[in-house]
Amino acid sequence: MTTIYGELKPSPRILLGPGPSDVNPRVLKAMTTPMLGYMDAEFIQIMDETADMLRAVFGTKNALTLPVSGTGMSGMESALCNVIEPDDEIIVCIKGYFGGRIADIAERLGGKPTIVEAEWGTIIPPEKVEDALKKVKAKVVAIVHAETSTGILQPLDEISEIVHKHDALFLVDCVTSLGGQPVDLDRRCIDIAYSGTQKCLGGPPGLAPISFSGKAVETIKNRKTKIPSFYFDMTLLERYWSGEKRAYHHTVSMTMVYALREALRVVLEEGLDARYERHQCNAEMLKSGLTAMGLELIAQDGYRAPMLTTVAIPDGISDVNIRKSLMNEHGIEIGGGLGDFAGKAWRIGLMGESSTQKNVLLLLSALEKLLSKEGYKVEPGAGVSAAVR
Amino acid sequence: MTTIYGELKPSPRILLGPGPSDVNPRVLKAMTTPMLGYMDAEFIQIMDETADMLRAVFGTKNALTLPVSGTGMSGMESALCNVIEPDDEIIVCIKGYFGGRIADIAERLGGKPTIVEAEWGTIIPPEKVEDALKKVKAKVVAIVHAETSTGILQPLDEISEIVHKHDALFLVDCVTSLGGQPVDLDRRCIDIAYSGTQKCLGGPPGLAPISFSGKAVETIKNRKTKIPSFYFDMTLLERYWSGEKRAYHHTVSMTMVYALREALRVVLEEGLDARYERHQCNAEMLKSGLTAMGLELIAQDGYRAPMLTTVAIPDGISDVNIRKSLMNEHGIEIGGGLGDFAGKAWRIGLMGESSTQKNVLLLLSALEKLLSKEGYKVEPGAGVSAAVR
Repeated sequence: MTTIYGELKPSPRILLGPGPSDVNPRVLKAMTTPMLGYMDAEFIQIMDETADMLRAVFGTKNALTLPVSGTGMSGMESALCNVIEPDDEIIVCIKGYFGGRIADIAERLGGKPTIVEAEWGTIIPPEKVEDALKKVKAKVVAIVHAETSTGILQPLDEISEIVHKHDALFLVDCVTSLGGQPVDLDRRCIDIAYSGTQKCLGGPPGLAPISFSGKAVETIKNRKTKIPSFYFDMTLLERYWSGEKRAYHHTVSMTMVYALREALRVVLEEGLDARYERHQCNAEMLKSGLTAMGLELIAQDGYRAPMLTTVAIPDGISDVNIRKSLMNEHGIEIGGGLGDFAGKAWRIGLMGESSTQKNVLLLLSALEKLLSKEGYKVEPGAGVSAAVR
Repeated sequence: MTTIYGELKPSPRILLGPGPSDVNPRVLKAMTTPMLGYMDAEFIQIMDETADMLRAVFGTKNALTLPVSGTGMSGMESALCNVIEPDDEIIVCIKGYFGGRIADIAERLGGKPTIVEAEWGTIIPPEKVEDALKKVKAKVVAIVHAETSTGILQPLDEISEIVHKHDALFLVDCVTSLGGQPVDLDRRCIDIAYSGTQKCLGGPPGLAPISFSGKAVETIKNRKTKIPSFYFDMTLLERYWSGEKRAYHHTVSMTMVYALREALRVVLEEGLDARYERHQCNAEMLKSGLTAMGLELIAQDGYRAPMLTTVAIPDGISDVNIRKSLMNEHGIEIGGGLGDFAGKAWRIGLMGESSTQKNVLLLLSALEKLLSKEGYKVEPGAGVSAAVR
C-alpha cells in the first residue's frame, strides 16, 4: 500500500549555520510565479536581467556569467571540468575542507594536482603559491576565498599577481563570500569564480552562479579533448544564456532563476557596500560577544571571514548537547565542525538575511544559558553586553 | 552604473509545449516554505518521505532512489557517468533527439556507443536490439521511453527481456513518461531510470528523480575507475539520502525537495491509474480534434505518447506565425520541432496539470482560428466537435 505523507509543515528555524541561510520573504514570494517556457521571450529577458545583476555582484564584465543549474558544488565541478583536461597540472591551495574537494574533482578529471597547504584556520601564504609555480607549469591555480570549514577569508590580490606572472588561470571558490564580501573579479583578475545562492545572496540553494574571463573562455575553446560533461559544458550553456540565437541545452528551473533574480534585486537595492558593511558589523558584534564569554575564536586574527565564525568548543562541553538544545529550545541552527574540526569547533554563520543584530543577540544569550547549564563558567550577560557596547 | 531591474511580472501562460508544464498551485505554495538545514532531522524526514513517494511512482522498491540536484538532463548524465567507464560498450537506441544525447554523453565518458536506429516517429523494433547484442557484448542498453522530440511511446517489455538475456543493464529515460504513463521499473526489470519534475509530475524543473536496481548498484561498486563526477557520484549521494548515518555531500535545494514532495502528494492523491487514464483521455480528445481538422499526426499509430503529440505543419503554413499568435493572442505555448522535425512539426504537450479537457478545447479552437486566417481550409468547429463527441 502506498503511503501518502501529510502536509509539509516544518518547524521555524533561525539559520546561523554554514548555509543555507534564511531566505528573504520577497524571494520566497517570487518563487510562486508560474512557469514560462524555456524559450519564451519573456523568460529569455529574465535570464538576461539575472545574468546582468550577477555581473554587478561579481564585479565583472565577463560575458560568460550565468547560474549553473545545480547547487554550489556544481559550480565547483563546472569550473574545473571545463578547463582541466587529462594530465593538466593544477595547483590546489588547501587550508580547509573545500580546498580538498577541488583536488578530488581535479583528480577525477584526470588532472594532476599539486597541493599547497596551510594549517586549518590559517591563510595560504602567497610565497608558497609562488614556490609551487616555480616547480610546476600549472594551467590553473585554485583557491577558496571564504573557507566555510575554518572561517578564514583568504587575501587574493598578491596571489593573483603571482598566478598571472606565471601565466596560469586564477580560479577562486566564492561560494560563501559572494554578496557578503567584495569578490571583485575584474579588479583582482580572477579568471574563474563560482558561488551558491544560499549563503550571502539570501536565496534558496539550487543554482551556482559562475563567471569565466576571456582568457578562461579561450582556454576552453582550445581544449584538445571534449568536455567530459554535457550538463556542465560551458560552450553549450553559453549559447543558451547569451547566444545571438538561443539554442536549447536543458530546461533550466524557472523557479530558481526567479528566486535568484529577486535575491539579486534585494542585494543591489541594499547596495553592495552597505551589505558588506552590515556583514562586517554583525560579525564584529558576534566576535566581541563570544570573546567576552571567554570563548576562543579559531581562525587566524586579521583574516576572519565576517560571514562565518569558528569557535573552539570549550573542554568538557558536549558539542552535540549544545547544538541540539539550541535547535530544540531556541530554534537556532549553528554548524558543527567539518573534517579536521569535527567535534572541536562550532561554525556560526551570519550570512545574507541571517546577518542581523537581533540574531547575534539571540544566539549569544541562548549560548550563555546553555553553556552555564553544562557547567561552563560565564559571567551573566557578558556576551550580550560586550556585543552591544 | 548598476541596473536594478523591476518587479518580476511575467504574462500568464498555458503551457502545452514539451515541458515545463503548468505547476499545481499547491506546489507553488509549498515552495514558500522557509529553509531547513541540510542535516536538520526534520529535513532528513522530508527527504525520506519524498524518496518513498518517488518509489511508488517509479513502481520500484530500489533503495537507491532519489532526486538528483539538477534538471532532467542531469538525470541522464548521472545515469551514465556512474556506470559507464572508458572503453565500455553501450548500445544506444536512437529514434529521436534525446537518444542522440545519450550517445553524446556516453562518448564524452569514454564509452563506445553502438547505435540502434529507427526513423524519427517510429519505435525501435526489439529484434534490432537483439541483433546488436549478438554483435556487441554491451554493459548497458539505453532507450528513451517517451521521446519528446517525436511523440513516440516505446514499448519496453520485450526489449527488457532481450537485454537481460544478454546480461546487460537496461537504462530507460523516463523524463517525459513518469507520472503520465506507468514506468513500472520493478515489473519491467529496468535497472536505471531517470526523469524530470516539470513534465507529468506537475512540478517546476529543478530535480531529476533517478533509481538504480541492486544489479546497477553492484556495477557501480565494481568499477575499476573512479566516477568522473563528484557532483553526480551515487556512492556519495546514497550516503546522504539513505545512509545509516547521513553524510554531507552538497547542500540540496530544500525548495526543490519541498516542491517535489508536494507534487508527489498530488500525484498519489489523484491515484496513479486515474492519472494515467486522464492523460490518455485528454490525448485521445486532442488527437480526434486535430485529425478532424485534417491535420496529420506524425508518430506511428499505436505507439503515440499520450503526453506529447506531434503534428505535421501543413504545407504553406508558417510555423513561427502560428506559434507566435498562439502565444501573443491566446497565451498558449506549444513546441516547435526539434532536430529532424525543426520547421516540420509542432509538439503539443498535455502533461501533468496541463492535461485538461479545457486546455484541449482552448487549443483546438485557437488553432482553428489561426490556421483559417493563414488560408488553411478547415470546417468551422470541426476540431472541437470531434473532440467533445
